[in-house]
Amino acid sequence: MLSIDPRTGGSRGPAATEATAADVDTAVRAAHATRTALADHRARAELLRAAAASLEKDGAEIIAAADAETALGHVRLTGELARTCHQLRTFADLAESGRHLEVIIDHADPDARPAPRPDLRRCKVPLGVVAVFAASNFPLAFSVPGGDTASALAAGCPVVVKAHPDHPRTGVLCARALRTAAAQAGLPGDVTAVVHGLEAGVALVRHPLTAAVGFTGSVRGGRALFDIASARPRPIPFHGELGSLNPVVVTARAAATRAAEIGTGLAAAYTQGLGQFCVKPGLVLLPAGADGDAVVAAAVTARVPSGPLLDPRMREAFLAGTRARAALPGVEEVLAAGAAGAADAPLSVRPGILSVPAGRLAVGEVHRALLDECFGPVTVLVRYGCEAERDAVLGTLTGSLTATVHFAADERDAAAADLVARLTQLAGRVVVDGWPTGVTVAPAMHHGGPYPASTSTSTSVGATATERWLRPVCYQNTPQELLPAELRDGNPLGVPRTVDGVYVLPAPC
Amino acid sequence: MLSIDPRTGGSRGPAATEATAADVDTAVRAAHATRTALADHRARAELLRAAAASLEKDGAEIIAAADAETALGHVRLTGELARTCHQLRTFADLAESGRHLEVIIDHADPDARPAPRPDLRRCKVPLGVVAVFAASNFPLAFSVPGGDTASALAAGCPVVVKAHPDHPRTGVLCARALRTAAAQAGLPGDVTAVVHGLEAGVALVRHPLTAAVGFTGSVRGGRALFDIASARPRPIPFHGELGSLNPVVVTARAAATRAAEIGTGLAAAYTQGLGQFCVKPGLVLLPAGADGDAVVAAAVTARVPSGPLLDPRMREAFLAGTRARAALPGVEEVLAAGAAGAADAPLSVRPGILSVPAGRLAVGEVHRALLDECFGPVTVLVRYGCEAERDAVLGTLTGSLTATVHFAADERDAAAADLVARLTQLAGRVVVDGWPTGVTVAPAMHHGGPYPASTSTSTSVGATATERWLRPVCYQNTPQELLPAELRDGNPLGVPRTVDGVYVLPAPC
Repeated sequence: MLSIDPRTGGSRGPAATEATAADVDTAVRAAHATRTALADHRARAELLRAAAASLEKDGAEIIAAADAETALGHVRLTGELARTCHQLRTFADLAESGRHLEVIIDHADPDARPAPRPDLRRCKVPLGVVAVFAASNFPLAFSVPGGDTASALAAGCPVVVKAHPDHPRTGVLCARALRTAAAQAGLPGDVTAVVHGLEAGVALVRHPLTAAVGFTGSVRGGRALFDIASARPRPIPFHGELGSLNPVVVTARAAATRAAEIGTGLAAAYTQGLGQFCVKPGLVLLPAGADGDAVVAAAVTARVPSGPLLDPRMREAFLAGTRARAALPGVEEVLAAGAAGAADAPLSVRPGILSVPAGRLAVGEVHRALLDECFGPVTVLVRYGCEAERDAVLGTLTGSLTATVHFAADERDAAAADLVARLTQLAGRVVVDGWPTGVTVAPAMHHGGPYPASTSTSTSVGATATERWLRPVCYQNTPQELLPAELRDGNPLGVPRTVDGVYVLPAPC
Repeated sequence: MLSIDPRTGGSRGPAATEATAADVDTAVRAAHATRTALADHRARAELLRAAAASLEKDGAEIIAAADAETALGHVRLTGELARTCHQLRTFADLAESGRHLEVIIDHADPDARPAPRPDLRRCKVPLGVVAVFAASNFPLAFSVPGGDTASALAAGCPVVVKAHPDHPRTGVLCARALRTAAAQAGLPGDVTAVVHGLEAGVALVRHPLTAAVGFTGSVRGGRALFDIASARPRPIPFHGELGSLNPVVVTARAAATRAAEIGTGLAAAYTQGLGQFCVKPGLVLLPAGADGDAVVAAAVTARVPSGPLLDPRMREAFLAGTRARAALPGVEEVLAAGAAGAADAPLSVRPGILSVPAGRLAVGEVHRALLDECFGPVTVLVRYGCEAERDAVLGTLTGSLTATVHFAADERDAAAADLVARLTQLAGRVVVDGWPTGVTVAPAMHHGGPYPASTSTSTSVGATATERWLRPVCYQNTPQELLPAELRDGNPLGVPRTVDGVYVLPAPC
């Protein structure tokens, strides 16, 4: 795997070797063999905290490598490293708390109706080796040491990551940090492994000991791997985050009262990280007429950054995608996207905004391209004449990670509630009077949405992300000595449990 | 669809009409249109309770129809109806409690690290129309008014059931009871619908508005539908319960101390409901030698029932399956299964027990047939010489709903704990010193297991069964008036919530 400079397209030489099917087999078997060692919640927590510390220790080197391979810049990557370490520590806390075990205990009840009840004790157990596919656009937070890896380890699952070809050297450095952390936590180094190469990824999904997959990437690549996972003799869960349009609705009253603020906010949102976020607002339903025009004017005149995209192939796709969309009948290029070569970054691009009357989207298939995600700094304004026309467009959209609405300050009526309900149907996160970029790591976060945003109902961010790597098991009439510790009387591990219908928090230690 | 008498194979005439693709389209669209009406938790609870009352009111007629179509007998079917109504009422309580919404609220925190936190409020929303496939062996509890239907309605999802061809008239009567209940609850009748016919089932899984599938049935049928669900342009969750061997291990010390009790218990367990339970113990690992022989002797001499299976096709499969297994080299027929025609039930069969040395299973592919589920009253004893041989057999098994172990009274050592851990890898429920038949409806129950027991990590019995039909949504910075009631300050619906990391029960009303 060559390490490529996205600013120039030049190669910095080989950074990693593509794994063969035999290499993948070795890695998965070695990871599988660490399951027993990982069964100890406290060792897992220690591993996750050591991983955060190890990444911080190597931070300067990792950030330099990631910037050289992604051109995302030191400020952004410093923030991303902090977020990555925060995720690791959050999942360490979760692993230690035992909340993810979702313990339910129903004591025996010989008088229960309609039938006597045996002693039943349920907890969750790890699925086994988890395959993680690193994302191009988050070389740390959604890659080798990212949320999928952290949540899988917290759940007790060994992890084999398929590194992203856009940043192989970053992947190698992060893999080293994870192995160092395992040694510090007294765990085998093979609890995590990293493999490189397209074929290695396919072999990883096909491997009989791979128990689940976490993926962040394109619809085409993700769907191909989902199909492989589903067609296995033993199908496995495939938690994929694929593509997302992230529609935004600006109501007529919002445009009438907050045009400049919304336009400026939009310009910042669709160009943040050069539009290379899965939650970039890619479609904005904006009223036709003067109020909407004022929003457009503010968006067009806002200062937006030019810069290189993550890789030359993505740049070609962006330039071709914006050209093709701009050429559709009725589509206006209100801000022209294009190449913007600079001396130090000849592959730079500049952001763009397209605009189309909502009526055009109803006419035929040709304009459907406007409803497909176009990765990079471009957004499509859809100008609607009335609410019915606006809602008709919403009715044609597929699932997204987010859906956003901008209201006027006092717009809190039944029509507003109806619009929020419509957006709920489309997405896993509904944002009001803000922008979807920025995915907070918090217990209530949900980062997922109806297909193609996700291939499952799960989240890849937030505390509930561990649910993806666990399955419940119920023990019936099992003697105390033979039960997992979290299910024993007296609650020796101090985990929260629902006992005979009552949620019981552990006593503070 | 003809209603067939499984005792004689004779037809009682047509009971229902096969649905065309157009009929399925109509039913799914009509169900989809009821989603808003079903959004009211209290109306759903009322519907579920009215359904239980309606089924009880029509109980005599329903039980008579079910017995005529399944030959399961009045005692069993009376119990199954009670269980079905209990399930409906349990899910009514759940819908009313709001526990299934899994509300998490994180208030805004401008000082949060590494980034300020917006106000985030997460709950769960219904997926949409759920397709339910009725099971042959539970004409009530896992069919039209069964657990899949009850849990989906509790979650707020309209349901279209594909009735089982073994009991079409029972399905028609139950469909009528559900429509009556909807009217009583003030809900549209189309919140549930029932369709008949194989092609209708396929059309149901393919329908664009079908959002998820619940299935109980064979590996072949279930896998075919799983493949269709996964290959859709928009794949949908397929929660299938397919096939299960339900292994039982009898330790050497258990056989030495409890042979008669275990043998008698086994005879009752594998013949209960004529072996037509998904949790029938189909494989028993039993020590070689005199102690194990004593278990066999007790099982062989126990009195076991003969009777008709659920349908003539199943009878043929049972007779052919037991014949083929008995003909394998080294397999002994310690109790010969076979046809057992009686005057009033010429299609009856009698139970059987096969036995094979564990070493045979290691030799080659031909004996793999013994590790496939054979539906009906037959079980396979695998006689092992040592623990390593026993564990080698366990290592070759695929997933099951249950795994059972019989220990001696004081057998609580590390080897016993290791055996429980091995069984945990194989199944969704581990039973100690008992039998897996009998699936208690209780919060801690888990009815599911690694593939092919289930196609997902979900359960079809117990409170967590609703999770299958919901997806999370997070609302970011959303004004109070526009939030769903369960997320508003003051908790007007009184649902349990996790607020800023603390689980908060509603105040008692």
